[in-house]
Amino acid sequence: MTEAPNAPLAAAMARNPALVREISEHPERFRMLTGERPTGRLHVGHYFGTLQNRLRLQDLGVELFVLLADYQVFTDRDISAEIGQNVLECMADYLAIGLDPQRCTIFAHSYVPELNQLMLPFLSLVSVSELQRNPTVKEEIRSSNRPQVNGLMFTYPVHQAADILFCKGNLVPGGKDQLPHVEVTRDIARRFNERFGAGEAYFPEPEILLSNAPLLLGVDGKKMGKSLNNSINLGATAEQTAKLIKGAKTDSIREVTYDPDQRPEVSNLVLLGSLASGQSPEEFAAACADSGGAGLKKAVTEAVNEFFRPIRERRSALLTDPGHLMSVLKTGNEHASGIARQTLTDVRRLMGTDYYPLGNA
Amino acid sequence: MTEAPNAPLAAAMARNPALVREISEHPERFRMLTGERPTGRLHVGHYFGTLQNRLRLQDLGVELFVLLADYQVFTDRDISAEIGQNVLECMADYLAIGLDPQRCTIFAHSYVPELNQLMLPFLSLVSVSELQRNPTVKEEIRSSNRPQVNGLMFTYPVHQAADILFCKGNLVPGGKDQLPHVEVTRDIARRFNERFGAGEAYFPEPEILLSNAPLLLGVDGKKMGKSLNNSINLGATAEQTAKLIKGAKTDSIREVTYDPDQRPEVSNLVLLGSLASGQSPEEFAAACADSGGAGLKKAVTEAVNEFFRPIRERRSALLTDPGHLMSVLKTGNEHASGIARQTLTDVRRLMGTDYYPLGNA
Repeated sequence: MTEAPNAPLAAAMARNPALVREISEHPERFRMLTGERPTGRLHVGHYFGTLQNRLRLQDLGVELFVLLADYQVFTDRDISAEIGQNVLECMADYLAIGLDPQRCTIFAHSYVPELNQLMLPFLSLVSVSELQRNPTVKEEIRSSNRPQVNGLMFTYPVHQAADILFCKGNLVPGGKDQLPHVEVTRDIARRFNERFGAGEAYFPEPEILLSNAPLLLGVDGKKMGKSLNNSINLGATAEQTAKLIKGAKTDSIREVTYDPDQRPEVSNLVLLGSLASGQSPEEFAAACADSGGAGLKKAVTEAVNEFFRPIRERRSALLTDPGHLMSVLKTGNEHASGIARQTLTDVRRLMGTDYYPLGNA
Repeated sequence: MTEAPNAPLAAAMARNPALVREISEHPERFRMLTGERPTGRLHVGHYFGTLQNRLRLQDLGVELFVLLADYQVFTDRDISAEIGQNVLECMADYLAIGLDPQRCTIFAHSYVPELNQLMLPFLSLVSVSELQRNPTVKEEIRSSNRPQVNGLMFTYPVHQAADILFCKGNLVPGGKDQLPHVEVTRDIARRFNERFGAGEAYFPEPEILLSNAPLLLGVDGKKMGKSLNNSINLGATAEQTAKLIKGAKTDSIREVTYDPDQRPEVSNLVLLGSLASGQSPEEFAAACADSGGAGLKKAVTEAVNEFFRPIRERRSALLTDPGHLMSVLKTGNEHASGIARQTLTDVRRLMGTDYYPLGNA
C-alpha cells in the first residue's frame, strides 16, 4: 500500500483527455464492454447518462459489447418472474435508440457459459481480503439492506472481469464508482499474464473512460432508479411523461434559472429540458424566462416528448415483434459465445489444461 | 443454530446402514459423483481408501461420474505445467484398475462450461458467512500455508455443489471431512428448489456414503500424500515398491502383531499387506509370526506386488497409447457436457432467464 487510496482515480482522470483523443483518432483500437442488469425499464437518466455515449462511440467506430447481466439480478433480488420481460423491453430500448446489432453485440450472461467459466481461473487470482476491501462491493452490500451478503455479490467484481476480458475488452465507460471494479479487472489481467502468459500479454488491461455526463435526478429530486417510480422511462407515453413532470417538485420563484446548488429541483428540470432540446441549461432557463414552475414543466415536457418521439415510435413497433428482438439477442449470444469459446481455448492452452485438440467439439 | 455442530455427522452415521442396504438393493436409483484433483499420482492409499469402493459400486450398478478437478489445482498450487501429465496418468490409473467408461463418466472441470456456469446461480444461494464458517475450507486454508486465501479456495464448496448437482448426483462417497461440503450442496439444492422450483424438487439433496475404509499411512508413518514422496504409487514398479517398503519405519520387536495404538508403523504395514492379500490384519500378522521387521516387509512387498501386478501391466500398456486415454476423457467430457447443457436449460427455465428456445444452438 504505497499509493493513496484515490491514486487510481487521479491516474484515470489524468489519463482521460489523452484516452478520449486516442479513441476519436483510432476507434478501431478499442473494444468496449458495458451493460445493465435487467431489473426494470431504462429511463431518460440512462439515456443521457450512458446510452447516448454508447451511440456516440458506436458511430465513431468503437466495437461495442452490451451485456444484459441477468445473473447479477440475483445478487439482491428474490423474484425472477419479470426478468424475461425486462430483457425484452431492454432489447426494444437498445434497438430503438439506435444500437446497431451489426456493430454492437448484445448478449446475456446466462447464455454464454464459456464467459462464466472464466470466473474459475480468475477467482484463483484474487484474494478474499481484496474482495472484502472493494469499496463498491461494500457500498452495494450496504445499500442492498440485506442481513446476509451472498457469494454472488461478494464475487461480482471477478464476474465483471470475466465480462470485460472474455472479449479482450480494453475500454469500460463509467463513473468513479466503477473504478474499483476496473482495477480488479486490471489486476486479474496482469496476474493472469504474469502467471500463465509466459511473457505474452494475453489479456489487455482495460481502461476506464470517465463519464462527463450530467447526473439527472428523479422527479422526486432523489437518485433516479429503475425500480423507484421516479423516472421517465424511455417507453413512457407523452401523457405519462407529462404527468410525471407535472408531479415534480419546484419552488415558488417565478424566474427560471439554472442554479443546481440553490435550486436543485428546478435546475434538474432545466437540465433535463436542455439535454432534450440540445441547448445549454442556461439557454433553456432563459427561454423559460419568468414562466414559473408550470411554464418550466410545460417546456420540459415538450422538449422530452419531442426528443423521444421517434425513439418511442420505433420502440412500439419493435415490441410488436418479440420474436425478432429475441432473435437479435440470440445472434448476439452466439457471437459472444464464439468469442468466449476461442478465449477459453487459449486459456486452457496457457494454463496447461488442454488435453486434446478440441476439433469440432 | 438449533442443532449441535455435529448433528449432520450423527445423522449421516445413523443413516448409513440403511443407505448401504438401499444401494445394494436398488443401485439404479443412485448416481455417484467422486473425483480427484490432478496434483500427482494415485497411490495404494487411494486404491484401498476410495478407488476400490468406486469399483464395487460400479459393479453393483451405480452410475459413476469421476471428476478430474483440474481448476481446483489452482487453489493452492502455482505451477500448472504438470497438470496434463497428471491427467494422463490418472486416466491410465482409472482404466487400469477397472473403471469402465461405459458405466463411468470420467471428465475434467475445464471442459464442461455449463457445469461451471452453475456456480453463478449457486453463489447467490449461499452467504459469505456460511462460506467463512465451513470447517473444511478453514482447515484447507490453514494447511495450504498461504498468506492469502484466494477466491477459488473460498468458494470451492459452491463449485463442488455444481459438480454434484449438474448431473443430479445423489450420492457422494467420503469421510467426515467431506460432510460440510455435502451439507453445502444439500443447502444449495434445497434453496434452489424452494426459490426457483415452484414446488418441484428439481435438484436432489445428495447423501454422503460414509467410508469404512481403513486409513493407510505413508511409509514414513505420516499421512500419505500425492506430493509427499511417502506413498507407493499405483504405477510404481515392483522394485520401487520393494525399496519404498524397505525404507518404512518398524520397531525392534520380532513378533509381528496388529496393534495400531501401540505399534502404529508396524500395524500400518500389516494393514497394507492384509488389504493386498485379502486377509484380515490379524491373519496377515499371524502368518508373519516372529519374522521381525525384515520378514514383515518382505511379506508386504510380495502381497502388494502380487495384487497390483495385473493393474500395473494394464497401466503400462495403456500409457503406450496416450491418444486413446485422451479420447476416453474427451468422450467423458462430451457426455458430461451434454448432461450439463440439459441441466442449464432447465435451470434457465426455472430461473426465468430462458428468452428463446435454444434449438440447435
